[in-house]
Amino acid sequence: MFFASDNSGPAHPSVLDALHRANEGYRFGYGADAEMDRVRQMVRDLFEAPEAAVYLVATGTAANSIALATLAQPWETIFCTKPSHINEDECNAPEFYSGAKLTLVDDVNAKMTAETLRAAMEAEETRGVHGPQRGPVSITQVTEKGTVYTLDEIAAVTKVARDFGVSTHLDGARFANAIVTLGCTPAEMTWKAGIDCVSFGGTKNGLMGVEAVIFFDPKHAWEFELRRKRGAHLFSKHRYLSAQMEAYLTDDLWRDLAARANAAAQRLAEGLRATGQVTFTHEPEANLMFFSAPRHLHRKLQGAGAQYYVMDSLDGDADAPVVGRLVCDWSIGAEGVDAFLDVLKR
Amino acid sequence: MFFASDNSGPAHPSVLDALHRANEGYRFGYGADAEMDRVRQMVRDLFEAPEAAVYLVATGTAANSIALATLAQPWETIFCTKPSHINEDECNAPEFYSGAKLTLVDDVNAKMTAETLRAAMEAEETRGVHGPQRGPVSITQVTEKGTVYTLDEIAAVTKVARDFGVSTHLDGARFANAIVTLGCTPAEMTWKAGIDCVSFGGTKNGLMGVEAVIFFDPKHAWEFELRRKRGAHLFSKHRYLSAQMEAYLTDDLWRDLAARANAAAQRLAEGLRATGQVTFTHEPEANLMFFSAPRHLHRKLQGAGAQYYVMDSLDGDADAPVVGRLVCDWSIGAEGVDAFLDVLKR
Amino acid sequence: MFFASDNSGPAHPSVLDALHRANEGYRFGYGADAEMDRVRQMVRDLFEAPEAAVYLVATGTAANSIALATLAQPWETIFCTKPSHINEDECNAPEFYSGAKLTLVDDVNAKMTAETLRAAMEAEETRGVHGPQRGPVSITQVTEKGTVYTLDEIAAVTKVARDFGVSTHLDGARFANAIVTLGCTPAEMTWKAGIDCVSFGGTKNGLMGVEAVIFFDPKHAWEFELRRKRGAHLFSKHRYLSAQMEAYLTDDLWRDLAARANAAAQRLAEGLRATGQVTFTHEPEANLMFFSAPRHLHRKLQGAGAQYYVMDSLDGDADAPVVGRLVCDWSIGAEGVDAFLDVLKR
Amino acid sequence: MFFASDNSGPAHPSVLDALHRANEGYRFGYGADAEMDRVRQMVRDLFEAPEAAVYLVATGTAANSIALATLAQPWETIFCTKPSHINEDECNAPEFYSGAKLTLVDDVNAKMTAETLRAAMEAEETRGVHGPQRGPVSITQVTEKGTVYTLDEIAAVTKVARDFGVSTHLDGARFANAIVTLGCTPAEMTWKAGIDCVSFGGTKNGLMGVEAVIFFDPKHAWEFELRRKRGAHLFSKHRYLSAQMEAYLTDDLWRDLAARANAAAQRLAEGLRATGQVTFTHEPEANLMFFSAPRHLHRKLQGAGAQYYVMDSLDGDADAPVVGRLVCDWSIGAEGVDAFLDVLKR
Repeated sequence: MFFASDNSGPAHPSVLDALHRANEGYRFGYGADAEMDRVRQMVRDLFEAPEAAVYLVATGTAANSIALATLAQPWETIFCTKPSHINEDECNAPEFYSGAKLTLVDDVNAKMTAETLRAAMEAEETRGVHGPQRGPVSITQVTEKGTVYTLDEIAAVTKVARDFGVSTHLDGARFANAIVTLGCTPAEMTWKAGIDCVSFGGTKNGLMGVEAVIFFDPKHAWEFELRRKRGAHLFSKHRYLSAQMEAYLTDDLWRDLAARANAAAQRLAEGLRATGQVTFTHEPEANLMFFSAPRHLHRKLQGAGAQYYVMDSLDGDADAPVVGRLVCDWSIGAEGVDAFLDVLKR
Repeated sequence: MFFASDNSGPAHPSVLDALHRANEGYRFGYGADAEMDRVRQMVRDLFEAPEAAVYLVATGTAANSIALATLAQPWETIFCTKPSHINEDECNAPEFYSGAKLTLVDDVNAKMTAETLRAAMEAEETRGVHGPQRGPVSITQVTEKGTVYTLDEIAAVTKVARDFGVSTHLDGARFANAIVTLGCTPAEMTWKAGIDCVSFGGTKNGLMGVEAVIFFDPKHAWEFELRRKRGAHLFSKHRYLSAQMEAYLTDDLWRDLAARANAAAQRLAEGLRATGQVTFTHEPEANLMFFSAPRHLHRKLQGAGAQYYVMDSLDGDADAPVVGRLVCDWSIGAEGVDAFLDVLKR
Repeated sequence: MFFASDNSGPAHPSVLDALHRANEGYRFGYGADAEMDRVRQMVRDLFEAPEAAVYLVATGTAANSIALATLAQPWETIFCTKPSHINEDECNAPEFYSGAKLTLVDDVNAKMTAETLRAAMEAEETRGVHGPQRGPVSITQVTEKGTVYTLDEIAAVTKVARDFGVSTHLDGARFANAIVTLGCTPAEMTWKAGIDCVSFGGTKNGLMGVEAVIFFDPKHAWEFELRRKRGAHLFSKHRYLSAQMEAYLTDDLWRDLAARANAAAQRLAEGLRATGQVTFTHEPEANLMFFSAPRHLHRKLQGAGAQYYVMDSLDGDADAPVVGRLVCDWSIGAEGVDAFLDVLKR
Repeated sequence: MFFASDNSGPAHPSVLDALHRANEGYRFGYGADAEMDRVRQMVRDLFEAPEAAVYLVATGTAANSIALATLAQPWETIFCTKPSHINEDECNAPEFYSGAKLTLVDDVNAKMTAETLRAAMEAEETRGVHGPQRGPVSITQVTEKGTVYTLDEIAAVTKVARDFGVSTHLDGARFANAIVTLGCTPAEMTWKAGIDCVSFGGTKNGLMGVEAVIFFDPKHAWEFELRRKRGAHLFSKHRYLSAQMEAYLTDDLWRDLAARANAAAQRLAEGLRATGQVTFTHEPEANLMFFSAPRHLHRKLQGAGAQYYVMDSLDGDADAPVVGRLVCDWSIGAEGVDAFLDVLKR
């Protein structure tokens, strides 16, 4: 009953198999491995982007921070929402890498809108050299609240960015889960909707620790390589990153694992709703959800061994509602969900 | 015949086995895994340092850069030699992380001496607020030239650092190879010789990509954690770093693999010497060596498939000497060495 | 009729006289001038702070940024309001110098309150190493909206900072104007109210370009000196900064000039109010004010040569209200104000 | 007898007169003053560079650091000599502003040569993404040792820079003194000799604190403005910088003052030589010199009140030679020099 995070579960067995295969023999390091050649081509094919620059790093924070540093100048401000990972969960890494600051755009359930983005952009307007200059827009898909931008919403946001002449980044730590929700292609969710750069996550979806950074315009390629090295994120034994990503891209494993996670979350949401004792702060749309339930219910669950975060102390009025966060990883399965729901039914 | 680098060979099978074991079940992320608890204790035991702060990162550049950023202030200068990895091979990462600059201390075969360090320290003396202030001393063991500091040499250097009130760092990307050469304990080569902080390398010695950073004074612990996170080097699925390091520390694997690499290098050096056609720029002391040989000999070797770096073009006078670098990893073995030597004998 | 900014007017004649006196003879540079010895003592006396560390820089942005860099760690976040100068008007300088980010605290007329600060502090609470850590609180007195914190308000805010163990900074670009408004002493408005560090402005109040940075706890002294030099803000011919500040502190010139500016602003506000055509967005409390008036009135004023900023285009509906900002410097005087008001009366 | 530095003497009276004139009336701030419009044109005329971007800052370290940050990328290395001000006397400011590191090029009397530069450039050659990339070349004219590059020497150095595709910067803290020595035009010493960017110093030559930064290619203009602001070096009351520079450029004051300083230095050098008791470490070529003399002679001079730096303690063997540095500012005059020489004659 481990719902604390989608980084809590195991890697998929085929990832370990790929490491075994990659472990044979000798390779030149630093991305010059044959596995990376294949990965680059697979990513380009998947995204229908034959020119794309494709790189691997080992953490999502690295993917976001180095990508944004490549897109932003140090005197600019990056537009994102308050709950975004780059704002709340990366301990100033995006600012450290880019030198830029962050401007928080008003959000609705963790999503910025064309209107709130435009308002934030316009508010930076009249200060000439004194204020930070407008820099890239970064959205998160799936958001940290478990909501998913529709394709139209992404297109509307990137339209505003284009109106102001700035570039766009998509933090796709849960990229695959969003694709499963939307039933669209990676190209549709990214460059066809106006996205310039993607952090394509693997770590939260069955890899050990690999994220791809994809620039649809390869002009950024060499700068990214230098920034990655300067950030100490270039792996000498790069083949072990490549191998994980190759496994992920083979036979649609990335989509399959996300589908499992989303299905588990859907089953979990339905089960919770059926109890009549919980409400969702907003509709769960992918593999994580925030639900409000009386303290006694959280106590029961956690007493039975369920692992997840609550947003307040469980000491206090037993009937008062407290919000909890549940995240389903690819491995949790119907059994994991049902074990959790069974506690509620007792 | 792959002698290009010790990051070119495979990981040891027990490392993969450890990943399999670590892949079972669920864990809290970010270093709160049980594997890391064991690793911390094993490192403390190995270094006879029960209070030491122990952290894992995935690249040697990260280990060095974040360690030095923790030891140095941004208005200081870090003392190292010109050929050191932090100066030549990290694309400004130490400066990026620390804000400090590097002062290059004269070296003898890539080793600074107490005298050259003292001279460099004194040269920074009289500038008050204008010049950079004296910061930590960083030495590399094994050096990039394949030489090894004796324990007395380390103690003499750290004595100078202490005289000037600055701390000391040891870049131990090839820590294990040096231990095998010196036949001493990790404690003797570090804190007993005056070292405050170590990058304890695993990647070049049979792991996929893990280095430990060890502070013998734990006062630096929390700052290091924050700097690691801010640098995007904190792994969510940390257990896969821990597992590799645990395998490395189990049954002295780290020492065993280094012993294999050093033995291969010794066999290789002897074989080269026996040809009467090569000279060493200095005596090989661990698992890498620089040798001078006529171009025709390099051509023969590389034509036969030997992989290694040469410091000049192989076009030109066939008899003119060119320096090449040979590195033996743990896996190359006597057969690998002999295959190389056989080419020379043909 | 120049109401665009309090940096638009001339320096006070006694400042030029002081430069003449300081220009006699030779001095050691970089702050070792006799003028600076006197300034240091005068600041300590004025602030009743015999231990205070006192430094001069030439711009307000430098004063704020280097002060905050000395108080904050690069993994921290600085608490300030959205309209604060450090957020909107310094082009990322505070972030550049400190490495920290800014957290925007809700404001009422540009002032944070104990409640909004506490809420912002608590919101940073539960992220461990992942989120930015709590850093210093910075308030602006007079605020960018022309409002003034009462002593109780300052004390309430700094009490919250102390509860969370963080330090406090006061951006006093218009320090003197606030002192005149409150009728209190510099000590009362700073360390007696819980402030640790002050940017004590002179540039907006009759100097050419000098600000003092004052740390009540001198432990920060040497670090500040190094950061000032590293930021290229240490003047070789420092006597010309010292001389300006000495003139400013002599015979209460600083207070006298601010009193003139505040009196002019009061006369201006009364005159505007008497027209019955304007409203203030909030009560003017020092030497600047924001007023709403129909476009035709702004056109009339600006057509007659009045210089000030309006927050919207003057094209459009003549009767629709537009907000303008008026700032009185020390030199504008009753005549300057009356000339402006006379335009309205025509 | 003040020979400690050329920042020790007074500003020229016409500079104070200019401040008086500039102090009349109101101005828009931040460089939008009419004085700056005139300065820009005067600099363009003086340098025969009608397109040049021209900016003012208040310190030489700011001029160098922001100029180099505009020319260099953070993953690059800047080529300079060991004794250069940017290496030894700016407390990491160039690295702070640019993110780049410095590579020290071998020097002959503080001047790099085409050969030593080429050797340093080539040494950075073969490391791909691992080493810092080649960045701008910065030379100092007059050097910190008092030597002066000939026009041919500058052209030879910039030729090497162009061969490697990097830009060139000239730190002209003593620009005027070099012009007087060489008897050439500013254009000849800069863009006609291959220089892309100049720090044109005024502070050491009779101003209170103003340096111009000149980019012959204006493509860098806006970036420089943003970096200046982000560095907190944009003056609100900019007219006081402009006024100083305008005075400096009027009626060739800049050249006249440097001619006085150089003439004093020549007189001083001849007088010292005539004593038969001193030797120069190298021929003085502008307004500063390093001379070796027995300790007893330094004691006599300093005992009589002469102010200058010595490179060793004056305690010890009275006959042993110690090196001293003498700098003549514009104001020292024949009388100041003769007073010094008279001490020697006693």
